[in-house]
Amino acid sequence: MVEHSTPLAIVVLAAGKGTRMKSDLHKVLHPIAGRPMLDHLLESAAALAPERQVVVAGHGREQLEQALGSRAAIAVQEPQLGTGHAVQQAEAALSGFAGDVLILYGDVPFVSTATMRAMIDRLHADDSPAVVVLGFEPEEPLQYGRVLAHDDGRIAMMVEYKDATEEQRACRLCNSGLMAVKSADLFDLLARVGNDNAQGEYYLVDIVNVATLEGRACAVIVTPDPDEVGGINSRSELAEAEARWQARRRLAAMAEGVTLIAPETVFFAWDTKLGRDVTVEPNVVFAPGVTVADDVIIHAFSHLEGATLESGVAIGPYARLRPGAVLRRGSKVGNFVEVKNAELGEGAKANHLTYVGDATVGAKANLGAGTITCNYDGYFKHRTVIGERAFIGSNSALVAPVKIGADAIVAAGSTVTRDVADGELRLVRGEQLVKPGWADRFHDAMKKKKAEKTAG
Amino acid sequence: MVEHSTPLAIVVLAAGKGTRMKSDLHKVLHPIAGRPMLDHLLESAAALAPERQVVVAGHGREQLEQALGSRAAIAVQEPQLGTGHAVQQAEAALSGFAGDVLILYGDVPFVSTATMRAMIDRLHADDSPAVVVLGFEPEEPLQYGRVLAHDDGRIAMMVEYKDATEEQRACRLCNSGLMAVKSADLFDLLARVGNDNAQGEYYLVDIVNVATLEGRACAVIVTPDPDEVGGINSRSELAEAEARWQARRRLAAMAEGVTLIAPETVFFAWDTKLGRDVTVEPNVVFAPGVTVADDVIIHAFSHLEGATLESGVAIGPYARLRPGAVLRRGSKVGNFVEVKNAELGEGAKANHLTYVGDATVGAKANLGAGTITCNYDGYFKHRTVIGERAFIGSNSALVAPVKIGADAIVAAGSTVTRDVADGELRLVRGEQLVKPGWADRFHDAMKKKKAEKTAG
Amino acid sequence: MVEHSTPLAIVVLAAGKGTRMKSDLHKVLHPIAGRPMLDHLLESAAALAPERQVVVAGHGREQLEQALGSRAAIAVQEPQLGTGHAVQQAEAALSGFAGDVLILYGDVPFVSTATMRAMIDRLHADDSPAVVVLGFEPEEPLQYGRVLAHDDGRIAMMVEYKDATEEQRACRLCNSGLMAVKSADLFDLLARVGNDNAQGEYYLVDIVNVATLEGRACAVIVTPDPDEVGGINSRSELAEAEARWQARRRLAAMAEGVTLIAPETVFFAWDTKLGRDVTVEPNVVFAPGVTVADDVIIHAFSHLEGATLESGVAIGPYARLRPGAVLRRGSKVGNFVEVKNAELGEGAKANHLTYVGDATVGAKANLGAGTITCNYDGYFKHRTVIGERAFIGSNSALVAPVKIGADAIVAAGSTVTRDVADGELRLVRGEQLVKPGWADRFHDAMKKKKAEKTAG
Repeated sequence: MVEHSTPLAIVVLAAGKGTRMKSDLHKVLHPIAGRPMLDHLLESAAALAPERQVVVAGHGREQLEQALGSRAAIAVQEPQLGTGHAVQQAEAALSGFAGDVLILYGDVPFVSTATMRAMIDRLHADDSPAVVVLGFEPEEPLQYGRVLAHDDGRIAMMVEYKDATEEQRACRLCNSGLMAVKSADLFDLLARVGNDNAQGEYYLVDIVNVATLEGRACAVIVTPDPDEVGGINSRSELAEAEARWQARRRLAAMAEGVTLIAPETVFFAWDTKLGRDVTVEPNVVFAPGVTVADDVIIHAFSHLEGATLESGVAIGPYARLRPGAVLRRGSKVGNFVEVKNAELGEGAKANHLTYVGDATVGAKANLGAGTITCNYDGYFKHRTVIGERAFIGSNSALVAPVKIGADAIVAAGSTVTRDVADGELRLVRGEQLVKPGWADRFHDAMKKKKAEKTAG
Repeated sequence: MVEHSTPLAIVVLAAGKGTRMKSDLHKVLHPIAGRPMLDHLLESAAALAPERQVVVAGHGREQLEQALGSRAAIAVQEPQLGTGHAVQQAEAALSGFAGDVLILYGDVPFVSTATMRAMIDRLHADDSPAVVVLGFEPEEPLQYGRVLAHDDGRIAMMVEYKDATEEQRACRLCNSGLMAVKSADLFDLLARVGNDNAQGEYYLVDIVNVATLEGRACAVIVTPDPDEVGGINSRSELAEAEARWQARRRLAAMAEGVTLIAPETVFFAWDTKLGRDVTVEPNVVFAPGVTVADDVIIHAFSHLEGATLESGVAIGPYARLRPGAVLRRGSKVGNFVEVKNAELGEGAKANHLTYVGDATVGAKANLGAGTITCNYDGYFKHRTVIGERAFIGSNSALVAPVKIGADAIVAAGSTVTRDVADGELRLVRGEQLVKPGWADRFHDAMKKKKAEKTAG
Repeated sequence: MVEHSTPLAIVVLAAGKGTRMKSDLHKVLHPIAGRPMLDHLLESAAALAPERQVVVAGHGREQLEQALGSRAAIAVQEPQLGTGHAVQQAEAALSGFAGDVLILYGDVPFVSTATMRAMIDRLHADDSPAVVVLGFEPEEPLQYGRVLAHDDGRIAMMVEYKDATEEQRACRLCNSGLMAVKSADLFDLLARVGNDNAQGEYYLVDIVNVATLEGRACAVIVTPDPDEVGGINSRSELAEAEARWQARRRLAAMAEGVTLIAPETVFFAWDTKLGRDVTVEPNVVFAPGVTVADDVIIHAFSHLEGATLESGVAIGPYARLRPGAVLRRGSKVGNFVEVKNAELGEGAKANHLTYVGDATVGAKANLGAGTITCNYDGYFKHRTVIGERAFIGSNSALVAPVKIGADAIVAAGSTVTRDVADGELRLVRGEQLVKPGWADRFHDAMKKKKAEKTAG
């Protein structure tokens, strides 16, 4: 494939209502693998280093503005008069730009960089087509518009399904809607597109017919993977796209040396990073921001987000790592344990029923079952610092800000509100009251009461 | 479809032994989507407002009596001499009834109301058939009995697979066993059915042949969905029926505007209600009785039963809501938290490792990590009432009956046994004992002991 | 099938590098259903009572030695010069052995005992073949070597795919690599195999061609299940093998009378034992060593390992049973509860947020929410003994070694360090400090501070 130095602009159409999603959230902002589908598309395009990026917005454009920030210009299409009209709205944002324009769709998020590049390459082929259309050959061509093309890819005609003859419908090459056009041609061609159709809309596809009528060649290239041009118009299609993404990601993880005992029960985020000889048991969910080093074992029913796991770490089952969790080499997080914005030092352990929040735990420290770092006073968060090899007895509460020294011991059941020095024992304990026979008398009284209630 | 005002009775056959289930539980009481399969069937029939409902029971009829209560009459078939004999046992329960009789099977629970109605409608068509048979066309007709019928649906002959010629077996229309018959005909026809067959049983299907021999027309209608007449005879078939039910329910949820990131990992109950823009992460189980309003997020690994979630609520991961949990607008239940028979007020939070049982929690109250409502004294349950904006420090135990006032604060690690007034601080804390150097000496002694043990 | 009394030796080839696994763990030690794939194979072979077992090891042989212990002799292949060369290395270990030799592959672990037996039986058939090859007919024969055989199973020729003519490739019978040979023939034949091929390796398959050239008959038998000879060369294939194993095990469980609501979400170990009328809800993981009696319900999201559940037990959701957990009849383990090396007596309950480790809990005892047995002092484990009908109040810590008497009561929030007598009440409680209005003043001060911070 030839690399071109021609500048590139991308125009992403995202003005549709997305009615079938039945959602207040803009369709292209619905997440797949933990990030908006639009971001998947923009990332694939980013690999081509576009000079300009324009998103054409209509319904819910405030949401798009907020989500995009300065990452792309927003062109407003109001009212929505068709895809051709949508692209025309990008004209101002492309003012002064000379180069290739790639027209993408916010709800067709998984077009690969390679396919985008192939479209642009084709635009610069010797026959210099005015428009390059991305075609696909689905298993069921259904009612997609057809691309009637010569063997060399030159387009004879684009035809809507409803206008197609039986013979034309027999052609299985369909129009994905994606196009590459030189900026010098794009708005000229668009200006000549009419809206003389049932919907009264300006269709982008008509630029091909306009160009062809003028004797300019247009070309189609065919995607090797029809799935990549699948549009997402409903929650079901969203779920299917997620499933396809996850299936690919799981295969990639296994190919890199990760054991997935039940791949279909492990859910990755778009940016999950996994080392070699990592084992992931069934039913594990990765939210974004997780990095896992080599030789880590993630037991069943664990949930990770924004966490860093160094080599030799073991977590779960039922470990919940939240953003800012950093687990140093060989540390261990057990069942029903939540770690948030906290670092566990090398070989440190928090094995059972523990909340570690806003804390620094020293190497080889041991947090007993039921340990709670009390990091919140209802208004502010405070930090707990635990020294190396410290031993926190079970069912203890460490009221932050507080510091437990190295080798210190906190006795079980203590609520610690003041710092504990290195090597010190801190014991907070109430008076031990012993009432012999009391329980026996209580049982007798209660059984009687219960019998009365049942009888009554 | 024409609505008929003819009275309707349903007869549900449920006398079989269900041997292949290998269960002490009656086959038709095995649950699908959280309720007995028999109830699924009765609900579909209930939409036709039957005047009488008779369940024919044999093995395990005590279980059926208990499960049905007064919802249906029970006719006892003892001994079991075939399906025709089974229907005959319903005669007493139908005494005095004049109208249509629909014969259903307790282990064929997913016949739709529409199909039942179509059977009855056919019974009232101009050719006035004596019997209407529900036929189906499975992908693999296997050894089902065949229905040989004319193009207009009139039945020429019912033939058992083993008695069928090759030509007859080539017919793919099979007998589901479901029938509609006018009460005036039913028992007359049954009385003329013999048991001159290998099993010595009275087969219901023979009423068609009896009627046909007498020159009365019988008709077949064909279900559009062969799955609906699938019988459940083993735990595998039970699991397959559950899977089909869940698949349909998931699609319905997504069509209504619910995001299911991994639909195949979410399990609904028969009565789950979900609002719009609800997001359900992977691995969530809904037991019966759950209502979820709009804009709720249910994080992974949550388990809900008998719970009400108002809009804007977020729960999980690892939230466990039990019957009587009511989560008011914007309240939040986090990881490893159990809520039972308790209300969380608007914006209230129970984020970590908490048990909230038999409690009322005021708006914006905050239950710290490890909070336990001690609702049970071994004999009776007692209530905890927490005021608005109250702050319960981590690792606290609230011993019910107890009341925490509005804006009150309970210090971390407190066991509260008496009411706390509004705006009051309650602090229950043991004596803080400090033993400098004790831990260091302990470590030395223990290391020595350990070394001895290892050496010894 | 005829039983033979000829002694049997098995030779398992396991010298390959397993490069595609990308793992530091030896390929044949990767677990399926909780135990190394090699052990699955050895167990199937063990049913034939082999006199000798030889594993041919190369790369990573230390791992194999450690894993096998005295269960098999290890022959070292160093360097690795092909499968024929590998088998030759077993000669010393088979010294003095006279009988049948079955050649297996460590990464083809699911060959059934029946298939192995059929191979040996064929070796003793009237035509007395020199070598018996196990053939298979995959759906896609791909590039497997072909077995060209007569109708009676006599082999005409073994041919590598790359050397095969189009006509030979059309033959769908492929060579699995597994062979049965009499010890008297094996090493003779191997000695005559050359390495005159592209790789310069000695191929085991060539013993067939050597024997055939000498006029000795060789025979092929065909496995009825091509899946059983599937090799595992990558993590994906490992996951596929696991999935096939699990699918079979789930069907077997259901056939025995276990309800699996969502079979595809339940993961068994190789040795899981389940009674009748056990119900397993979605998302349950069985690690090795679990025995479940009749009428047990395992709620969703439970994780079991090395645990014994007597009849009538209910656990979960979110129950975590670890090795040594013994749950007597009718006992109950609820959500977010971990049980390790502990016995719960008949009808005992640990319903919420509890850690029971190294403990004996008497019949009908009740552990309140948040109960923790403090079994570890940082150096040694100690035992907690709880009497029958004892009631442990919520959020209590029992510091082992400690004994709670029968019918005793521990008040909520107590840290118990000394034994509690039968029928005694133990109450450990700090001083109750009441600070009226303090919380109100705190709220005012904090709100002010927060406002300043926000403004600042």
